[in-house]
Amino acid sequence: MSHHTSASLSLELIQEASTFLEGRVRRTPVERSDDLSQRLGVDVWLKLENLQLTGSFKVRGALFVMHRLFDEGIDHVATCSAGNHGRGVAYAAGKLGMRATIFVPSSVDKVKLTAMQQAGADVRRSRYAGYDDTEKWALEESEKLGLPFVSAFDDPAVMAANGGSVAVEVLDQVPDATTFVMPVGGGGHAGGFAFHVKEKLPASRIVLCQHEGSAAFLKSMQEGRAVTAMPPIDTLASGLEGGIGVLPFEILRTRHDDIRLADEVALRRAMRWLIDEHQLIMEGSCAVAIAACLDPSFPRPDGPVVIFLSGRNIARNKLVDVMSEMD
Amino acid sequence: MSHHTSASLSLELIQEASTFLEGRVRRTPVERSDDLSQRLGVDVWLKLENLQLTGSFKVRGALFVMHRLFDEGIDHVATCSAGNHGRGVAYAAGKLGMRATIFVPSSVDKVKLTAMQQAGADVRRSRYAGYDDTEKWALEESEKLGLPFVSAFDDPAVMAANGGSVAVEVLDQVPDATTFVMPVGGGGHAGGFAFHVKEKLPASRIVLCQHEGSAAFLKSMQEGRAVTAMPPIDTLASGLEGGIGVLPFEILRTRHDDIRLADEVALRRAMRWLIDEHQLIMEGSCAVAIAACLDPSFPRPDGPVVIFLSGRNIARNKLVDVMSEMD
Repeated sequence: MSHHTSASLSLELIQEASTFLEGRVRRTPVERSDDLSQRLGVDVWLKLENLQLTGSFKVRGALFVMHRLFDEGIDHVATCSAGNHGRGVAYAAGKLGMRATIFVPSSVDKVKLTAMQQAGADVRRSRYAGYDDTEKWALEESEKLGLPFVSAFDDPAVMAANGGSVAVEVLDQVPDATTFVMPVGGGGHAGGFAFHVKEKLPASRIVLCQHEGSAAFLKSMQEGRAVTAMPPIDTLASGLEGGIGVLPFEILRTRHDDIRLADEVALRRAMRWLIDEHQLIMEGSCAVAIAACLDPSFPRPDGPVVIFLSGRNIARNKLVDVMSEMD
Repeated sequence: MSHHTSASLSLELIQEASTFLEGRVRRTPVERSDDLSQRLGVDVWLKLENLQLTGSFKVRGALFVMHRLFDEGIDHVATCSAGNHGRGVAYAAGKLGMRATIFVPSSVDKVKLTAMQQAGADVRRSRYAGYDDTEKWALEESEKLGLPFVSAFDDPAVMAANGGSVAVEVLDQVPDATTFVMPVGGGGHAGGFAFHVKEKLPASRIVLCQHEGSAAFLKSMQEGRAVTAMPPIDTLASGLEGGIGVLPFEILRTRHDDIRLADEVALRRAMRWLIDEHQLIMEGSCAVAIAACLDPSFPRPDGPVVIFLSGRNIARNKLVDVMSEMD
């Protein structure tokens, strides 16, 4: 069972997270995409959270939640992560002088694994390649160890920081935006982001992007309940592989306007596009949102678009493999 | 002859440039390098101007100078650039509704060329691969066209913005730094940076890094005069290829503590290092400073080090070529 430091998501909690994170994380820039602006016929901006400290937005939630746990007197936590959340937790633990035991799938990216270890975390690699099996094992193990378990997404405070605080920045940076495009995996970012944006701009459009091989949110909408576990798939988008959280699903079910799927070929093409157009690295999970916008079937937006870029943690050998392909 | 908007470099001019650029360019982050900190035994920070708008610090000088020219009533300028300065000038011209004619070497990187053209500049490719020959031709052509020529480095206002304004940020971000490491080509960045730092922290160390095949500053020190032209070389560090400016040399001759050279192999290795350690792209010119610090002969610093990263504009095929090599 996850240890939550807050009962429910609210604008107040998002504001608290935003204020707390000021000066502790980077206020990442938005960068205009000339190419996508031309393709879609409106201004398209990239919110570059792939340039965030620790290489992804996940450090926001990790810092916010770990500080709250620290204030509760907790000095050692457990968590499960495909890598970015774990890297954030390891960073936060280092800052606070806390200990972190992090359970990761066997498929974890080398960059993420090394960074967690270098930050001093106790990293335990599971025998499962998939996230959901690994999390089940992680919950059992942390129970045995008597450690409070920090969810990567199924927690109001994580959503407030990982999604809400980013939305606060984005609405300030691109005040006339009407469409917001983002990946959704467990839903920690998307839940907090969509909650904030729909409160502030009810008429705006939230477009959620998933890997077609692990479309837990789409399946959840079809079944009318959160699909929290999915069969593991082999993909570069390891951060999106697996089920959606119960709390994020409850928020997102009434706060999204479109669901777009991308396949492995499209996300690899999107990674090359970002290097060609912006000379920036993104990881596979990040790429599904760009892939969705590059797809000719993407509906013509009625105003400026912001695409959320989540992370850049990817090992060089994988990147070379993607970059060497021809379009 | 270059058109200067200011007679000489001063702390006042640097302050003016800094104030002007606030909100117009990114205040880029500094990122700690765990690996280099361990190697050198002190905290090592990277000033990430490779994440600047337009992909390099050169947009600072371009914006500052172009605004001053605009205020003088000039609506069309000429310049010569290996690419980054040109990209900055093209961006500034677009913002101001001015026209820019940009002369570039035949060896210009595709990313830089495309970006200048997309920004609406009139780009003229020379028949020379080297910078110095191209600049000679560019000066003749702009004379014929009756256009004021904006130097990429040999101008106090360019130095104040390209180097001075970066130094202001760095001293604020890493106030205890004692060693500053940066590439030097024409000297526009290094001149302004070293001037500011030596005024504020006279005891600090300025380490200037060059490509061993085009070490104009080292040669200038040996000869006691600015070597403004060098034979062209074929290198990924195209922004460092060529002679040094007269004004930057006069500033730097008494404001540096060490000169370090890097060869092509070392700068390519440094580019891979940045991707492995930080998941960030840098271009060849940027890499000589990292290469210098990775070299085991780099002298042990007596306090925190800041390494200046200049740009990320490099075509994907060149990057793949570098990244595919084994270390």
